[in-house]
Amino acid sequence: MTLDNLIAKALQEDLGTGDLTTAYLDLPKKDTVAHLVAKQDGVICGLEVAYKTFMQVDPSVRWIAYKKDGDLVKKGENIAKIEGYSSSMLQAERVALNFLQRMSGIATLTWQHVQLIKPYKAKLLDTRKTTPLLRILEKYAVRTGGGYNHRFGLYDMIMIKENHIRAAGSITEAVNRIKKHNTSYKIEVEVTNLTELKEAVDNKVDRVMLDNMNLDQIKEAVDIFGGLIEMEVSGNVKLHTIEAIAATGVDFISSGSLTHSYNSLDISLLFKE
Amino acid sequence: MTLDNLIAKALQEDLGTGDLTTAYLDLPKKDTVAHLVAKQDGVICGLEVAYKTFMQVDPSVRWIAYKKDGDLVKKGENIAKIEGYSSSMLQAERVALNFLQRMSGIATLTWQHVQLIKPYKAKLLDTRKTTPLLRILEKYAVRTGGGYNHRFGLYDMIMIKENHIRAAGSITEAVNRIKKHNTSYKIEVEVTNLTELKEAVDNKVDRVMLDNMNLDQIKEAVDIFGGLIEMEVSGNVKLHTIEAIAATGVDFISSGSLTHSYNSLDISLLFKE
Amino acid sequence: MTLDNLIAKALQEDLGTGDLTTAYLDLPKKDTVAHLVAKQDGVICGLEVAYKTFMQVDPSVRWIAYKKDGDLVKKGENIAKIEGYSSSMLQAERVALNFLQRMSGIATLTWQHVQLIKPYKAKLLDTRKTTPLLRILEKYAVRTGGGYNHRFGLYDMIMIKENHIRAAGSITEAVNRIKKHNTSYKIEVEVTNLTELKEAVDNKVDRVMLDNMNLDQIKEAVDIFGGLIEMEVSGNVKLHTIEAIAATGVDFISSGSLTHSYNSLDISLLFKE
Amino acid sequence: MTLDNLIAKALQEDLGTGDLTTAYLDLPKKDTVAHLVAKQDGVICGLEVAYKTFMQVDPSVRWIAYKKDGDLVKKGENIAKIEGYSSSMLQAERVALNFLQRMSGIATLTWQHVQLIKPYKAKLLDTRKTTPLLRILEKYAVRTGGGYNHRFGLYDMIMIKENHIRAAGSITEAVNRIKKHNTSYKIEVEVTNLTELKEAVDNKVDRVMLDNMNLDQIKEAVDIFGGLIEMEVSGNVKLHTIEAIAATGVDFISSGSLTHSYNSLDISLLFKE
Amino acid sequence: MTLDNLIAKALQEDLGTGDLTTAYLDLPKKDTVAHLVAKQDGVICGLEVAYKTFMQVDPSVRWIAYKKDGDLVKKGENIAKIEGYSSSMLQAERVALNFLQRMSGIATLTWQHVQLIKPYKAKLLDTRKTTPLLRILEKYAVRTGGGYNHRFGLYDMIMIKENHIRAAGSITEAVNRIKKHNTSYKIEVEVTNLTELKEAVDNKVDRVMLDNMNLDQIKEAVDIFGGLIEMEVSGNVKLHTIEAIAATGVDFISSGSLTHSYNSLDISLLFKE
Amino acid sequence: MTLDNLIAKALQEDLGTGDLTTAYLDLPKKDTVAHLVAKQDGVICGLEVAYKTFMQVDPSVRWIAYKKDGDLVKKGENIAKIEGYSSSMLQAERVALNFLQRMSGIATLTWQHVQLIKPYKAKLLDTRKTTPLLRILEKYAVRTGGGYNHRFGLYDMIMIKENHIRAAGSITEAVNRIKKHNTSYKIEVEVTNLTELKEAVDNKVDRVMLDNMNLDQIKEAVDIFGGLIEMEVSGNVKLHTIEAIAATGVDFISSGSLTHSYNSLDISLLFKE
Repeated sequence: MTLDNLIAKALQEDLGTGDLTTAYLDLPKKDTVAHLVAKQDGVICGLEVAYKTFMQVDPSVRWIAYKKDGDLVKKGENIAKIEGYSSSMLQAERVALNFLQRMSGIATLTWQHVQLIKPYKAKLLDTRKTTPLLRILEKYAVRTGGGYNHRFGLYDMIMIKENHIRAAGSITEAVNRIKKHNTSYKIEVEVTNLTELKEAVDNKVDRVMLDNMNLDQIKEAVDIFGGLIEMEVSGNVKLHTIEAIAATGVDFISSGSLTHSYNSLDISLLFKE
Repeated sequence: MTLDNLIAKALQEDLGTGDLTTAYLDLPKKDTVAHLVAKQDGVICGLEVAYKTFMQVDPSVRWIAYKKDGDLVKKGENIAKIEGYSSSMLQAERVALNFLQRMSGIATLTWQHVQLIKPYKAKLLDTRKTTPLLRILEKYAVRTGGGYNHRFGLYDMIMIKENHIRAAGSITEAVNRIKKHNTSYKIEVEVTNLTELKEAVDNKVDRVMLDNMNLDQIKEAVDIFGGLIEMEVSGNVKLHTIEAIAATGVDFISSGSLTHSYNSLDISLLFKE
Repeated sequence: MTLDNLIAKALQEDLGTGDLTTAYLDLPKKDTVAHLVAKQDGVICGLEVAYKTFMQVDPSVRWIAYKKDGDLVKKGENIAKIEGYSSSMLQAERVALNFLQRMSGIATLTWQHVQLIKPYKAKLLDTRKTTPLLRILEKYAVRTGGGYNHRFGLYDMIMIKENHIRAAGSITEAVNRIKKHNTSYKIEVEVTNLTELKEAVDNKVDRVMLDNMNLDQIKEAVDIFGGLIEMEVSGNVKLHTIEAIAATGVDFISSGSLTHSYNSLDISLLFKE
Repeated sequence: MTLDNLIAKALQEDLGTGDLTTAYLDLPKKDTVAHLVAKQDGVICGLEVAYKTFMQVDPSVRWIAYKKDGDLVKKGENIAKIEGYSSSMLQAERVALNFLQRMSGIATLTWQHVQLIKPYKAKLLDTRKTTPLLRILEKYAVRTGGGYNHRFGLYDMIMIKENHIRAAGSITEAVNRIKKHNTSYKIEVEVTNLTELKEAVDNKVDRVMLDNMNLDQIKEAVDIFGGLIEMEVSGNVKLHTIEAIAATGVDFISSGSLTHSYNSLDISLLFKE
Repeated sequence: MTLDNLIAKALQEDLGTGDLTTAYLDLPKKDTVAHLVAKQDGVICGLEVAYKTFMQVDPSVRWIAYKKDGDLVKKGENIAKIEGYSSSMLQAERVALNFLQRMSGIATLTWQHVQLIKPYKAKLLDTRKTTPLLRILEKYAVRTGGGYNHRFGLYDMIMIKENHIRAAGSITEAVNRIKKHNTSYKIEVEVTNLTELKEAVDNKVDRVMLDNMNLDQIKEAVDIFGGLIEMEVSGNVKLHTIEAIAATGVDFISSGSLTHSYNSLDISLLFKE
Repeated sequence: MTLDNLIAKALQEDLGTGDLTTAYLDLPKKDTVAHLVAKQDGVICGLEVAYKTFMQVDPSVRWIAYKKDGDLVKKGENIAKIEGYSSSMLQAERVALNFLQRMSGIATLTWQHVQLIKPYKAKLLDTRKTTPLLRILEKYAVRTGGGYNHRFGLYDMIMIKENHIRAAGSITEAVNRIKKHNTSYKIEVEVTNLTELKEAVDNKVDRVMLDNMNLDQIKEAVDIFGGLIEMEVSGNVKLHTIEAIAATGVDFISSGSLTHSYNSLDISLLFKE
């Protein structure tokens, strides 16, 4: 689904057979001025989506952005000025904010994690634990907050998990089978201990995911195999745990909660009196 | 978009041009058994969506539910047993969980709020602050958690907000205009003080939304107009504030955070060894 | 389906793999002038749909409207002037007229009914007996003709019919169950006699539909319960019966034939020589 | 749009976010028996569409047809028996009837015309004046009533109208241009007098449409050119005029009102007590 | 599917979740100039499709065509000049060329066949052996190369094949049945010998298709029935056989390989340094 | 677009408003037996697509496959047996063959190339020069013929072409920028001489594409950098050139003509008498 389609369907969801209140009020086609205002500190993300939502409802609406995606905003700051018929603005408002607040919430949470690992080489990755149909937007929000994208889906990278290994018999067997077909994609293997990690290294895959290892185990893995293979840590990544994980020297830390358990950033559309 | 379409698009988002890992592993069509397991206490919601996700990937998968939507689950409890080809299950897993964890997260958060206001007459309502394209599922999750649905969109109820009032000139004028056209829908008016509230009551609308009033103001509103009109409180509804609001005697409390700032419930698909 | 989609699909239905006649004639891109002309008296409705149909075929077509939706037109009057390539106009003509003639037919029939009940307080309502996929347009045509819209579908109002009552056991039981869930929608109950009507009134629903009652029964119902509840009459509403029904003093009269058995208004596109 | 898609969209139009009444009544999954009953004499048409509508709502519904498309039904006769959950039946009922009543209305009106011209060789044709998006169904209904289909759209036959002739310069020039490209489609030319008719015959087209000719003119045309070319009469075809037109000996009579100004056939779904 | 939809889906197929290379390069929005250049002699076809592909990616791209569809191009000749952001051009390039090269390939192959039969009256026809979803474009390319279109699908002409004849019992029976329903479409009958051909002629169908006849048989058929019925030859039509077939005097020669076994014309987008 | 959608749209393209011939013949619902027969030697590919096409037209059709994708077939061999109503089979036949013949044509051409390079380590890759909307099927056909898939689109691998290099300033700068963002995808760089190749190697990218190099240059590149980086040769890959290219020792040879200039494999559906 393209972005334009996504917005169209979101508007259809909210408008259905039409905005009764505005229609029945016989509102005159009169201009209003309104501001998108941050009600909380955070990282703004999703301005193009919000803009396109207003445009779809009414292409005559004017939009002046004071911020751009990735900017830090303070509570009370104006993000954009919007002018147009009040009926158009009331019809686009909720959908635009539903996108903007969620994307800014993800960007903000990502940014908070990233601040904590700046001194270390570890990069923060997202996961596939995204909201159905919004993955592109949510992964964009992660990048906006300073994170990096892990694979977008099952189709653009090879990830050999425990279950695949069990089905194939061993890491070596699984990797060999994959390599018989694969010419274009990176291969990552999930490992749970140093033996498996060594097997992955020996098989020359691109990356390992250290699953459910504690800090000591991770540290040991980095000490032995650091530099020989990309290492990703996954599991129990929180604002209060991430720095210690990064301090082990791993290359990547991936976190599902960036996209599955964030708070929307509080943003309002305030009409000028 | 129908539920079947929604699931199909979510699967397409994740599978794209195909699951590389499974395809390149030449996995035999062999059966596996797996369990959906709660990793946290909560209210389960979305089992039909999860089930249909597996069915779309492979109609030969078998599904035995141990729980039904609305059931409380304890950490470690099995929610459902699923049997089928491991390749099918690995392809459906993430999408099914992405739905199930979000819906259960909303149901759980709703349930937590509802527990706190059980002694009072107030009903907990959701809002239109839902995830674009998932509104039906999220509003269903609110009902599953014991909440009630406010309007589904701009098309099924009339809500006269501050801006509408300003555009029309007064509450009375706005209501009169609406009533000239409306024969089928309830009318709610947003009020910010007792004078406006009285004007709404005089105009015989169905409900008022008390906006940004503190507890004393709400209490006074209830004392004077209680029983004459439905009263809904909105704004700053949190787990630590909701009981005091309910105690004022209002009829409805609406909360956007139920759907815009919840945590996904932690649920895993565990393959049996 | 949005209006733009609806028009696109209608054009696709007529144009298919292309307008053979125009294509094979190698028509020069030359301008023509044509007029939409009423061949019958009536109420015009659907001008925006017709306009958008021409625009979809060729955005360079010019359109000057002499009438607006809801205007009465006399046989022979011009409704709009259209200028553009003759090939574009020949391709849009039939689809534009298919919409415009149907919508004007409904608006005209509605207007004829409304004229007859003007002295009374009764409002004329439409029903769900609309053409599949055209409900929004047909309900708009009813409003254009001076009628009012009943519910748009099963999703925006609660209507307890005989069958629901039977399944629940009684009107009282049905209403009680509904009220346990419902916070946003009006409730209407279908009643067939005064006993049921009284039960509905006692249960404080919003409206009753008097089904299959004759004029005397309706009159008696109004005499006893008038003002206590909204009353809607349904069934056998025709141009020769509606005035007598309105004279009973009911609040609403609903008629399916407005949208299921109207004649298209005769309108032509006449090319200027 | 396939038939399945059409029905799905029609159901979505009516069900929207869900059937509130049924959902809020917590109706038990209990079977009901209902009959489709004719409330008027007529020709039944659209049973497959109605059947598929019920199936889409609930594949467990049972359907026993007593009639088939094209059968004459008498007021009071049962058309089909339907068994299933009452909730399923209440959700499919209106959409199924909206299709069935319209299609039967067209079939009935067509049948009435056809009865009047049985003694003559003339065949009754439909036109492109059909309801947007329902053309296939409406043209099927015309066939069901004993009529024949004219072209389905601009893409499957060549029809040179007055405007095309004017743009090309003459009938001869228009036909010559068309024949340079056309190898697959029949060519029909609209003519308004005997001179034009002769020109069409000389150019060996497949059919002429006699436009706005009175009965005498049509008779003269048939006398002179009958058998040399197919002749179609169009315009002012009504139940009280069609026999006289057929009596002139023309090959085809085409009527737009079959599909743009019919009455729905009155059919009800009656639940058994 | 409309052309705009087709292009949109083709772009989506190639762009998926986004052009990684361009995005990660942080390319400045700077203009480039590029030329579409023929790398082979041929007939150009599909310029509008290519143009619209660039426009969908970025409406600010400028396009100056040096050639029009149907023009012969020499190796090395410029076909069009395109200016715009290099990122936009790199994203549209492959899809635009995928359309343009295929359509030009078909037009070129068609043109080569047509050159060989110019002295004869036979017209070259395409078939339904087209690429799924691209039939309109491919049939347009055949016309562009000087060929003619056979039917577009099963819906716009009647073709009685051997199997239909066998099912009906005889050519005469099959034609009679068809004529009972058909008023709008041409009828073609597949025949394998002179007896069948005579039966088709006697039944006054519009065309016969001589199936699997050798040159002598075709010649005999033309000698006996030429002028009485349109004759189409099908099967084994190649560049080295077509002239001999045309020389028999048949009216039509149809060839599937025009659309199922052509080579794409080599065309490149060359960026100006 | 899913495979089911693709087939549905292909059928719609061919069937449009319905198969006239079959409908007008009033064919009885009688069973036929037919065989898919190879009329040429080749590699069969696309059996599932063909099967699903028949199933979509009529789920009661029976299908027995004698071959599976990738099997070599000889001229005259049966590929599958199909039984069902002749009307169903005649409606599915053309679309099923249009898919099957194209996919088998690609698989066959790929297989022919692959035979020639078997003694060498080079793997044959496809490109993005595929038919719009059929890329998944065509890339599957390449794999079926023994080839390997290059990237599926712009979204799953990073390919730095000449133009990107020029825009960024140098290979080094381009790679550096990419690496700042990229964590998941392989990076390939297009190089035209040894200096550029060395720069690519120094920047530790995953693969280089040797563009427009002659055999001597390729050989020299392999001698110097072989084993240090994956090397892909592109351009002028034909059946008579591929062996010499492979003999240089490169890792990959990519060929656009596999998917843009193949011949359909001749396959027929023969009905049993």
